[in-house]
Parts: sequence; structure tokens; C-alpha cells
Amino acid sequence: MAERGFPPSEFRTRVTALQARMGVAGIDALLLTTAADVFYVTGFLTRFWESPARPWFVLVPVNGDPVAVIPSIGSELMGQSWVSDIRTWDAPMPGDDGVSLLVATLAEMVPQAGRIGVPMGLETQVRMPLGDYLTVADRLAPRAFVDATDVVQRVREIKSEAEISKIRAACRVADACFARVPEYAGPGARLDQVFRDFQRVLLEEGADWVSYTAGGAGQGGYGDVISPAGPQVLVDGDVLMLDTGAVLDGYFCDFDRNYAIGSVGDEVARAQAALFKATEVAMAAMRPGMVASDVHQILCDSLRQSGATPGGGRLGHGLGITLTEWPSFTPHDQTELRAGMVLTLEPGVEIAPGRILVHEENIVLRERGVELLSARAPEQLPVLR
Amino acid sequence: MAERGFPPSEFRTRVTALQARMGVAGIDALLLTTAADVFYVTGFLTRFWESPARPWFVLVPVNGDPVAVIPSIGSELMGQSWVSDIRTWDAPMPGDDGVSLLVATLAEMVPQAGRIGVPMGLETQVRMPLGDYLTVADRLAPRAFVDATDVVQRVREIKSEAEISKIRAACRVADACFARVPEYAGPGARLDQVFRDFQRVLLEEGADWVSYTAGGAGQGGYGDVISPAGPQVLVDGDVLMLDTGAVLDGYFCDFDRNYAIGSVGDEVARAQAALFKATEVAMAAMRPGMVASDVHQILCDSLRQSGATPGGGRLGHGLGITLTEWPSFTPHDQTELRAGMVLTLEPGVEIAPGRILVHEENIVLRERGVELLSARAPEQLPVLR
Repeated sequence: MAERGFPPSEFRTRVTALQARMGVAGIDALLLTTAADVFYVTGFLTRFWESPARPWFVLVPVNGDPVAVIPSIGSELMGQSWVSDIRTWDAPMPGDDGVSLLVATLAEMVPQAGRIGVPMGLETQVRMPLGDYLTVADRLAPRAFVDATDVVQRVREIKSEAEISKIRAACRVADACFARVPEYAGPGARLDQVFRDFQRVLLEEGADWVSYTAGGAGQGGYGDVISPAGPQVLVDGDVLMLDTGAVLDGYFCDFDRNYAIGSVGDEVARAQAALFKATEVAMAAMRPGMVASDVHQILCDSLRQSGATPGGGRLGHGLGITLTEWPSFTPHDQTELRAGMVLTLEPGVEIAPGRILVHEENIVLRERGVELLSARAPEQLPVLR
Repeated sequence: MAERGFPPSEFRTRVTALQARMGVAGIDALLLTTAADVFYVTGFLTRFWESPARPWFVLVPVNGDPVAVIPSIGSELMGQSWVSDIRTWDAPMPGDDGVSLLVATLAEMVPQAGRIGVPMGLETQVRMPLGDYLTVADRLAPRAFVDATDVVQRVREIKSEAEISKIRAACRVADACFARVPEYAGPGARLDQVFRDFQRVLLEEGADWVSYTAGGAGQGGYGDVISPAGPQVLVDGDVLMLDTGAVLDGYFCDFDRNYAIGSVGDEVARAQAALFKATEVAMAAMRPGMVASDVHQILCDSLRQSGATPGGGRLGHGLGITLTEWPSFTPHDQTELRAGMVLTLEPGVEIAPGRILVHEENIVLRERGVELLSARAPEQLPVLR
């Protein structure tokens, strides 16, 4: 694969973009706490976030460079990033788990009449103990804590070419893996073993790690798309779906593929044809300036024109540093689509009550339209015998 | 492996234990939001938590059965659990992402003068948008939101025999994987490929998925224990450490193993001997009734008696549904050790500035002492040539 990480200029561009929006919003400093936001600003990449023991903080002032306020176990790795101001404490520390250090650092950075931005809206979480957050907010008064969801999401949702290259590379890993599904899946295979093999092959094809796999299998469709695999044995007439979020250099792909186990019914072929067509229609129609709900409408209209029943829920979403990002292709999301957004198109069809088929591609929106990042799914279901 | 999941009786026992502590603490309902707490109470197991798009809520009333308030995408899977009261909304929903449904459900469950418990202390996070939490708290006033960290942690930290069996099974997967490291690691191997092979073999040995891998390699020790692998080539004199949190049926193991690449120096052998001995001493000494900081003291004393310099940070922690749980073997943690706790012992030695060696075992504390869950690490470093 290409070079790991990003040059400091990439991070400076990101921080400058955040600071421009902070200025407009009247925010003096951003308080970031999640793996994704910390990685976005600093390049700090580790699977250690899997441990919920310790909070991590990165502060972005409206002028100047970010400051990392982190557990000392991370100082070596953060020290390799472009961030030079790194302040540490011995976490986990009962009674004061970084609170005093965070308060002191924010007090330096933000005047008494100032505002501290925290992403606290839709699709956000504050990854620190709630009690500590409330203490920090109290001790920093009269400084105000305000919602910075829009600042972060509007910047992160536009990917640089360097980011797009990394997502494309992750998609290629999954493409190669999906091409090898016939090696281990077919009539008589156990679904839990298929899931293990699927992850094994993702690693063999170059994934750094596999943060997400899901799937389903059933006669004439599957019941849901988030369950772990059980000991179910694949039989003739099943549809098998495998879905992955494989990670390469900190960036995700997120798409699925469907397979026919032997002979599946005509209703599955019709659903597949409707999904394939709806995806084609959406890819041809999507342009910057639309809003997210337009894409939902386009997909649903096409599915209905094909005589299919659109599945509920969202029919696609943003993609990048996390498996799913905003916006969401639902009837409710009015986020403007802009060039540089990496997105999934994920139309679903309800074949019968409790039987669905879901199709997924990864794309980047360009000024002139859609560019595929995943290899286009086959028009007809591949058959595993 | 043994049967998947748990019978409803296991969950009823857990809920009864939570409710007993809620009664003492004067808490009318618990609001749980994390993957671990939701899994603990309901058995709801999915990798879909990787998507940060949607919040999930499980409410435990002080009397009666839990109620799930969840995105509709989870209704099929939650419907297979023992929970019968499942309320759903179409997430993500701008403007009201489950807030009204959550408020209505809590208002039914908790009287106006009542108290709602939320884990908000050390090693906790509230996995929902902060803005929505503040809205929920405001709309439910005068009901009080209080810290329920102690309620949840004191119950979850004592594992049932069924849970211990699952953690032991996860440890056996890692044991089998560590035995196969000589197949792919040695002089000339690239560290990033070693990490991929390590994960591949964990899957081959039966892990459902691999949520955590870390490691390090360097001459006479490594620099840290949380970095991802780079293209570094292993050479004679390196110490290689591999660490994993492999998951089986929702439960983690978490231990590492060290290997000598060819000939390592005497200072490494001395560090290894000191770590091995300190672990032996701690395993022989640990008893219910001690506190967590006692174990830190025992490990440090033994290391110093061997002439070694104890590494900083915590020297072990709880283990189970997440890679790391409380308590922490630090000088500060006064949590009482009790029979049924599953723990890691993780002494580290600083061989030279920026050069460490870390040893780790997984254990369960019994009334009479320690039972190993991982196969004991070899007394001397295995040599890979």
C-alpha cells in the first residue's frame, strides 16, 4: 500500500478548516474526546481505544496548534505525531482522572467570557465520564460549553484526496476478499465459520484489522443485518450476505455483497435487479447541492418503480474514520451534499415480512457526480454451489 | 465451544443483583447506554456498536424487568433476547433521536421524587449525545440523575461461573495462537505482517473476532505497548511482544507473550526472570479482602527485590465484557478484591529509558487464591530463529 499516515501539512489544513468554522461560530476552543476526532486532528492511531478505562482529550484553540491532554501510557505514541504540546497524567486516577489538567489547559486557552465547543449533537458522544464533564464545565464557569457538532461534522465530512486514497485502498482489500468468498462459502458451510474465514481473508488481503463484520443468510432473504453468526448451515435456496468494515491505516470501507446458495427464487432475482437499478439511478443522479433526503427519495422511487418495497431505515451514510458517519440517507436528513463526501449507497428491499435484501456500494461525490470506490457489485447474484 | 449465550436465569440473577444495590442506593431506575452494560443485562451481542450513529438504551427498574429503548434496526436481534418490553424508533432521527421515547419510558418507571442512576464515574462513558442527555435530564425534572457507577461496577466485577467459562475459552484461543507464533515470526519477518498473521491465527483457533491486538519489538525491549505495527523488520536481538483481546461469545481474553528474536542480552533475561517471579509471588499472595493497591505493592516489591525497575502505570486490571475493566492495580485504587473477580496481572519492567518488557496473565480470584485462566507463560523467553 501507499505510505502510512499523513504529512503534517494535512493536519494543519484540517485544523485551519476547523478554526475557520470555530471563528464563525464564536468558539474559542474545541474539546475533542473520541478516537475518530483525536485521530483526525493528530494522526494518533491505536486500537487501545478498545479499553474504556481512560479518557483522552485534544484541544483545538481558535488560533494556534492543538494540545493533547492524555494518559501517560500514550505519550510515546502521541510524541510521534505532529502535536508538540502534550500534557499527561497517570490514568486511571481515582478522584482526579485528568480533570485538573484539562481544566488548567482550557483555562489558559479560553478567556473567562469565552466559549468551549464540544460535539454534543446527533451522532456524537463525549468519551469521558459524565461526572467529570460536569465538573470540568462547572470549574471553568463562566466560560460556556456550546455544541460544536456542526463545526466538526462539516469539516470531517469533506475528505481530502489523501483520505479518499486510503478509503479506496480499504475498499480494494474488501473487493479482493469478496472475490474469494467461493473458496469457503457454499451449501453445507456453517455461517460462523464463513464469518471467521471472511475475516481471515480480509487480513490476508491486507487489512490492518477488521473492526466490523456482519451478515445474514436465509431462504429468500435474511432477517436482519447486524446479528453475529450462529452455527446455521447454509442450504440450497439461501441468500448469503457478508458486510465488512475493514480498516487500513485508520480508514474504513463499508460495503456488503450477496450470494445465492444454489438456486434462489425469482423474488430474490427481482429484488436484486431492483437494488442494482436503484443504485445505478442514484449514482447517475447524485450531484453536489442536493440534500441527503433527496438520495433517499431517488432510491425509494426507483425501487417502487421496479415493483419492490423499500426497506426501512437509512439507505446509506457517510464513511471514513468510522464505519458510519453522517449524513444519513433518510427522509429527515437535510444535510447538503458536497464534493469530497465519501458515502455509502445502501438500498434495501423487503422481499417478504422479515425477509430483506440489502445492497451496498462505497462512493465519493465529485463536482460532476459519483465515483465508485468499491468495485461495482455484479448485476446478478453470484451462485455458490 | 460450549453453548452460546446464557439462559434467562443468568440475566435474572444479574438484574436481581443490580436491583439489590439500587435499593440500597435509593435508585429507582438505571439508565444504561454502553455496549457492555446493555450486553450484560440483555445478552444483546452485535458488532454494530462500531457505528456511532445511534444511541441504545436499556432501563432497569428497581422492581421488574428491564425495558429496551432502541433503534428499530435492532428490534429483530433484541427480540431474540429475554427482554420482552422493547420500544423502538427510527434512528438516526434529527431533532428527536429517541429522546421523547426515552423520557416517556423513564417517566412511567420513576416517580417525580425519584432518582435515575447513570454510571458517570471513573472508567465510564455515557454513550449518547451529550445534548440529548441534558435534554432528557431537564425534561424529567424534578427526578434526579445520580451516579450509579458503584452499582454497576460492584455487580459486573464478580463473574458467574458461566462467565468465567467463557473468558477461559477465550484465553484458550489465545493460548493456541501464541503456541503458533513460531510459524510466522522470526528474524526477517515484518512486524505488520506478524500482526496480521497473529490475528489470522486467532480466528483459525476459534475467535469470533479480534477486537484488540498490540505489541512491540525492539533491541533489548520495546518502547510502548499500544502502537500499531509498522513495516519494521525483526532482527536478531529484538524482543517481540504480542498482546491480544480476542473475543469469544462476547467475552475477552487479554494477555501478551514475549519472544526473543535470536539472541537477546542478559538484561532482557534478568527482566524476564523478575517479571516471572513477581507474577508467581502475586498469584501466591492474592486473596479476597485485599485491595487493588495491595497487588500493585506486591508486584513492585518483588520486582525491586529482583533488582528490576517497575514500569509505570497500572500493573493489571479487571477483564470480561470489555478488554479492560476495573479495578486497576495502581497505588491509588482501594477497590476490595473479592472471589469471582477476573483480573489481569501485568507487571512491567523498565530495562532502560524507553525500553520496557511487560508480562501478562489472566486469572480468576477464588476464595482460596488465584486460578490461572491463561496457560502460564514460559519461565524463559521462547527463542525464534
